Amino acid sequence: MTGTASNLQIVRTVKDLRQVVSSWRADGLTAGLVPTMGALHEGHFSLAERSVADNDRTCATLFVNPKQFGPNEDFDVYPRDEAGDAAALAERGVELLFAPGVEEMYPEGSTTVVTVPGIGDILEGACRPGFFTGVATVVSKLLVQSLPDKAYFGEKDYQQLCVIQRMTADLDIPVEIIGCPIIREADGLALSSRNAYLSDTERAIAPALNAALVHVVEALNAGMDVAAAEAEAARQILDAGFASIDYITARHPETLEPVTDFSGGARVLGAAWLGKTRLIDNIGVE
Amino acid sequence: MTGTASNLQIVRTVKDLRQVVSSWRADGLTAGLVPTMGALHEGHFSLAERSVADNDRTCATLFVNPKQFGPNEDFDVYPRDEAGDAAALAERGVELLFAPGVEEMYPEGSTTVVTVPGIGDILEGACRPGFFTGVATVVSKLLVQSLPDKAYFGEKDYQQLCVIQRMTADLDIPVEIIGCPIIREADGLALSSRNAYLSDTERAIAPALNAALVHVVEALNAGMDVAAAEAEAARQILDAGFASIDYITARHPETLEPVTDFSGGARVLGAAWLGKTRLIDNIGVE
Repeated sequence: MTGTASNLQIVRTVKDLRQVVSSWRADGLTAGLVPTMGALHEGHFSLAERSVADNDRTCATLFVNPKQFGPNEDFDVYPRDEAGDAAALAERGVELLFAPGVEEMYPEGSTTVVTVPGIGDILEGACRPGFFTGVATVVSKLLVQSLPDKAYFGEKDYQQLCVIQRMTADLDIPVEIIGCPIIREADGLALSSRNAYLSDTERAIAPALNAALVHVVEALNAGMDVAAAEAEAARQILDAGFASIDYITARHPETLEPVTDFSGGARVLGAAWLGKTRLIDNIGVE
Repeated sequence: MTGTASNLQIVRTVKDLRQVVSSWRADGLTAGLVPTMGALHEGHFSLAERSVADNDRTCATLFVNPKQFGPNEDFDVYPRDEAGDAAALAERGVELLFAPGVEEMYPEGSTTVVTVPGIGDILEGACRPGFFTGVATVVSKLLVQSLPDKAYFGEKDYQQLCVIQRMTADLDIPVEIIGCPIIREADGLALSSRNAYLSDTERAIAPALNAALVHVVEALNAGMDVAAAEAEAARQILDAGFASIDYITARHPETLEPVTDFSGGARVLGAAWLGKTRLIDNIGVE
């Protein structure tokens, strides 16, 4: 199933996207979707490879969605390299890349938004107002535009995955949402397009976020009080050189609500600022 | 294409709905959708007849959507007669009725809402907070659940039609939204399920709403100032015996924003209270 760059078709309109996916359907083929904002790394490639393995055809999307960036966030400087991304996707056997412009996704006059109250309001939703509305809106559009059998999202953005699963079920979009494991550097740092913002010094400090989450998991497994474990982890991160912490918290693995009983498992999630870069990470607890 | 009651299949789950529509698709047949809240009258029947004429198969839906009623509105007493509605739809050649329960449409834990800022915030949206969010959410679900070729809505709820067209375009739902003309009693009263609430005395007063909108149209055509025409119409309605007016206004025919230049046409919309019943109506101006 390995292709070359010449086997990757690039389309820029919803109409062309639908035409290609319809032709797959007409041939009785299954389709997987891998939505991305580009700046692809091994985390994205693992999604593409999973989709290529699971489905007859795979469509990746590349759209830096302005609606999920706040007014003071990094939309303008978010890394962009379509040619490099396209070549890498082709190498991994992706057949189609949907790379629309902003006007195609949000034509003049469009206003509709999809909101996921509850799980979309806490943690990342509280730190980044409007973020999950932007995510839910663009993902609902991408899913309805292409109507694949399955769509793939990384657990790196674990809350985003939960929000997308909630939204897809609630709006009855007939697509199976698949979460895929976080890909990490050897020192534990979760791969992220935003790691490119880190200086060499910051890069050396960055794994402290993952280490602190691991510490919370170990403390919970050892029976330590959850608030004490979270506080210890926060101190570790700040001692390591992070500038500030948005949250370090153990939550219910599906609702992401605070819990005191972790017998059903937990997800430990963290968000912290390293210089001007905001990093997030998470780990599951059995 | 006329059927009998025995030709109408009733389904109550999204799964069964999809199975029937898929079987139509597999046979190469086109599908029309007629969403309703039941309590059907000739207005609804005109939608069903249009769909039956336009498409190979027609599915009507019957769901009194709790999310589009405010806390002090008439959800509990909204008229319900599924057996009568089903028989009438069968007579008109409708093949399928989707009549889900609230749990099927909004399972426990569901939270996602679809909002249409702008056109969804004014007029009815301002008078009935949350109304269009409830409408946009349930209609997006019904459209995505069934994925028909076309879906039919009455111009009686003109702003609702505009909101649904906006939402369907914005979320890229591949369904053509068709607006159908208002059906009126001989005296001009627009058919509405809520007309059943009117006493005999109120029923005699009710056509004054339509008459006042006609007056605004004639006044605009005669070159009268729009504010003066609206004020005259409001006085007429109150003089006729209406209790109060929510709005009587001439607007841009698509955005429903206030305009001063009506050379591109207009829509004159009214909402007023007759006793405890709220009536709405509208007329187009060429």
